[in-house]
Amino acid sequence: MARPTPLSGFPEWLPDGRIVEQHVLDVLRRTFELHGFAGIETRAVEPLDQLLRKGETSKEVYVLRRLQEEAGAPGEDRAGQLGLHFDLTVPFARYVLENAGHLAFPFRRYQIQKVWRGERPQDGRFREFVQADIDVVAAGELAYHYEVELPLVMAEALGALRSIGVPPVRILVNNRKVAEGFYRGLGLDDVDGVLRSIDKLDKIGAGAVTELLVTETGATADQADACLALAAISGDDDGVITRVRELAMAHAVTSELLEEGLGELGTLMRAAASRAPGVVVADLKIARGLDYYTGSVYETLLVGHEQLGSICSGGRYDTLASDGTTTYPGVGLSIGVSRLVSRLLTGGLVRATRSVPSAVLVAVTSQDLRPASDAVATALRARGIPVEVAPSAAKFGKQIRHADRRGIPFVWFVGAPDESGTATADQVKDIRSGDQQAADTATWEPSSDDWWPRVVPAT
Amino acid sequence: MARPTPLSGFPEWLPDGRIVEQHVLDVLRRTFELHGFAGIETRAVEPLDQLLRKGETSKEVYVLRRLQEEAGAPGEDRAGQLGLHFDLTVPFARYVLENAGHLAFPFRRYQIQKVWRGERPQDGRFREFVQADIDVVAAGELAYHYEVELPLVMAEALGALRSIGVPPVRILVNNRKVAEGFYRGLGLDDVDGVLRSIDKLDKIGAGAVTELLVTETGATADQADACLALAAISGDDDGVITRVRELAMAHAVTSELLEEGLGELGTLMRAAASRAPGVVVADLKIARGLDYYTGSVYETLLVGHEQLGSICSGGRYDTLASDGTTTYPGVGLSIGVSRLVSRLLTGGLVRATRSVPSAVLVAVTSQDLRPASDAVATALRARGIPVEVAPSAAKFGKQIRHADRRGIPFVWFVGAPDESGTATADQVKDIRSGDQQAADTATWEPSSDDWWPRVVPAT
Repeated sequence: MARPTPLSGFPEWLPDGRIVEQHVLDVLRRTFELHGFAGIETRAVEPLDQLLRKGETSKEVYVLRRLQEEAGAPGEDRAGQLGLHFDLTVPFARYVLENAGHLAFPFRRYQIQKVWRGERPQDGRFREFVQADIDVVAAGELAYHYEVELPLVMAEALGALRSIGVPPVRILVNNRKVAEGFYRGLGLDDVDGVLRSIDKLDKIGAGAVTELLVTETGATADQADACLALAAISGDDDGVITRVRELAMAHAVTSELLEEGLGELGTLMRAAASRAPGVVVADLKIARGLDYYTGSVYETLLVGHEQLGSICSGGRYDTLASDGTTTYPGVGLSIGVSRLVSRLLTGGLVRATRSVPSAVLVAVTSQDLRPASDAVATALRARGIPVEVAPSAAKFGKQIRHADRRGIPFVWFVGAPDESGTATADQVKDIRSGDQQAADTATWEPSSDDWWPRVVPAT
Repeated sequence: MARPTPLSGFPEWLPDGRIVEQHVLDVLRRTFELHGFAGIETRAVEPLDQLLRKGETSKEVYVLRRLQEEAGAPGEDRAGQLGLHFDLTVPFARYVLENAGHLAFPFRRYQIQKVWRGERPQDGRFREFVQADIDVVAAGELAYHYEVELPLVMAEALGALRSIGVPPVRILVNNRKVAEGFYRGLGLDDVDGVLRSIDKLDKIGAGAVTELLVTETGATADQADACLALAAISGDDDGVITRVRELAMAHAVTSELLEEGLGELGTLMRAAASRAPGVVVADLKIARGLDYYTGSVYETLLVGHEQLGSICSGGRYDTLASDGTTTYPGVGLSIGVSRLVSRLLTGGLVRATRSVPSAVLVAVTSQDLRPASDAVATALRARGIPVEVAPSAAKFGKQIRHADRRGIPFVWFVGAPDESGTATADQVKDIRSGDQQAADTATWEPSSDDWWPRVVPAT
C-alpha cells in the first residue's frame, strides 16, 4: 500500500489537533449540561424520503447501499433507502416523534455528532463535519423566552473557549416576524422571494439586490429601497427597535406582526445587553436562506474571521415535527465544530501543550526489571496521573529522547540496589529544566499545569 | 408525519440510557488516557478498494453515493467509490501510513467511534455500533511486552465499570504460534483450515468439527483428536503451558514455533495473575476466525452473559500496514460498546439516577420575575451546579411536578419582598423528602451524590 493521501472535505487531525478538538467538545458539553440540556445521540442514517422532505437539500445527501445489494436503476422507488443525515435537526425531529411518550416537554437536548453533505469542499466547508446542537422543543406551545435563552447559552459556551485563544464572537439576531411584517406592510406579499433576495446582499451587493427585488418580487423602486434600508439597520442595543419603527413610519407601514416581532427582538436585546454584553447584535439583514424559521434567527461570526461564515446558526421554528395530533415547535442553534476547530488549527490560534496524555515516562533499567517500572506506573495511575512505560530498556539518553519527542515532561527512574545492597530512591527528572530529585510514588505529583495536556493560545 | 418506528440494527437510547452510554465512554477514555494512549478520530469513510482488501468482509460494507451522482452499473470500476468503515483497524492503518512522518513510534492510540456493517441484526449485533479501540503500533519491530500490556489495560477499563453494575469479565487468550506450531508439528499444514474448523467448536460441537477436520484439512482421526484435545485446554494460570507440553509430547509434536508461543503465553499468564488476578484465562480454542493475527489473540466474555459473545476482542498482527519500505506491526483490542451498553440497558443491569443533568429547577414566581430566576440559575452555574429554570410561571405545585417528572431533586424558590417590604430569603426544597430550607446562591450546594446524574447498579 503506497502512502495514502487525505480525502478532500473529510478533515482529520493529528493527535495534538485532536486534543484541541476534544477540549472544545468537552467545554461545549459541560456548558450545555450546566444549563440542563440532556445529551442524546441519533443513528447516522435516516430514511431517504425523510431526508428529502425539504427538496433544497437533496443535492447534498449521501445515499447508502449494501455492497451485495442489487444496484437499482436511477429513478427507482426510494422506499427503504437510507441516507446519511446532513444535519442534526431532521434526526432530532424524528427522535422526538418516535419517543414522544417517553420524553418530558419542554425537552432540552444537546447533540454532538458528525453529519455529511456531498457538497464541493471549500475552506471551512466539509463533506464530513461535527455539529454541536442545542434545542428546546415543546409539545403544543413554546414560550418566547427560550428564543432569548438559547443564543445566550451559545454565547456562554463560545465565551468559555476564549481562554484557549478562540476569538470573540458576534451573535447576529433578527426576527422573521419583523421582516415579514415590514414587507407585507409595504405591500410586498412574496415574503420568501424578498428574503431570498436580501439574503444575497453580502454576496452580490445592494444594486443587484434592488434589481432582483424589482424583477423577481414585483417591488417598486421605493419598496426595494425600504427593504434595503431595513436590511441596513444593525446595532447592539434596543435603539435598533426605534430605528425600525422610524423607517416603518416613514414608509407608512403598519403591521401587527411587525410590532410583535419588534417586541420580541427588543426583549432579546435587553436581556443580551445585561447577560452577554457586547456579544449579541441585532442585524436586520439576517435571513437564514429558505429555512423553516418563523421567529428569531441567529448567525454567529468569529471576530477577525468573518469571511469564514457563520460558526453557529439557528432559529425558532413553529413546526419541528408533527404527528397529526400534536405539533412540536422548537428553537435551536448549531455550532459548526469542525469549521471552528479547523480555523483554530490551520490559523495557528490554539495549540495543545503536548501530543500525548502521559505526564510521566517511566524508564526501564533492563528488560528483566520491566515489572518494577510497571509497578511504578500502576501506583502513579492509581493516583490519577497519566503514565506510560518506556518501550525498551535502551540507554537512558534514548529513553529521555523518547519522552522529549512526545512532549512528556517527566522521566521516572526506578531505584535499584547499589553496591552495598541498599536500595536507592526512585528519581524523577523534569526533562525541560534537567532538574532531577528523589521521588516517591505515594506522594509525588506533577504541577496542575503539567498533569494533563492543556489547550492554550498558540501565541 | 406519522410516528416513525425504530430501524432494526440502528440502536438509539432515551436520554437516561445515553447517560449510561456516555458514562461508559467517559470511563474508557479516562482509563486509556491514564495509560498514555492518544485519542484520534478518523473520517467515517474509506476508499472502497481499501475496505475490500480482505474479501471476507466485503458483504458487510455500506457503499456511499451522492444522490445526484449517476447511478453506476453493478460491475463498474470501484476507483473513487467510498464506503463506511466496518471497524477502526482499517482506518487506523491508513491513518498511520498517511501520517507516519508526524507520529512518534511506538504509537499508542485510542479511538472511540461508530462503525457500520450491513449484517442481519440480532441480539447484540447491530448495523451501526460504537467501538472503543486501543492499539500500539511500531515502525519495524514491536516488542512482545505490549501483548501483555494491552489486555491488562482493557481489564482495568472494564474493571472500572464494575461499580456501576457491569458484571465481571473473563479475557480469554490464546497464541497463534501455539496453535500453528502444534498443528504443523502434528503434520497438518493447512493451518487456516484447522483454525477455521476449531473456531466452529462452540457452534457445531466436537463431532462435527472432527468431521470437518478430516474432510476439509485431510487430518487423520488421531490428528483431529489432538487438535480437539488442544482446544479443550484452558485455565487461569501457567499450568496450561504444562498441559500443552504434555499433549505435544504424547503426540510426538516438536516445534520451535510452539515453544516460542508457549513462552509468550506463559509470560502473559504470569503477568495477568499478578496484575489482574482471576480475569485472564488461557483458552486454547480461541481462534478469532480468519483474522490477520500472528501472535496473541483475545476474546472477552461478560460473566453470566456468555451467549452475548465477545465484548472485547483483538490480537497481535505483524503487518498492520506497510508502505513498501517500513512495516508496522501492532497489537490491539476493541470493545463493542454498543453490545455492552445494549445489554446493560435491556438487561436492567444499570440505571442513571435521573434523565437530565439538572440538579436544580429554579421556580418562576411570575413571568415578570423570570430575570430573578435566571439570575439564581446563573449564580449556581458559576459554581458548577447544573440548573434549569422552570418553563412557565405555573402554580408551584405544577413546577414541582415538572422537576419530579425529570428526576430533578431540588426546586429553588426565589425570595420576594413580603408585606413589610423586607425581602424574604430564597428557599430550596428537596422534593424527595419535602425538606425546605433557606438557601444562598453563594454557598448552597447539592450533595455530591445529587450534583450530576450518576450511573448505578439497577438492583
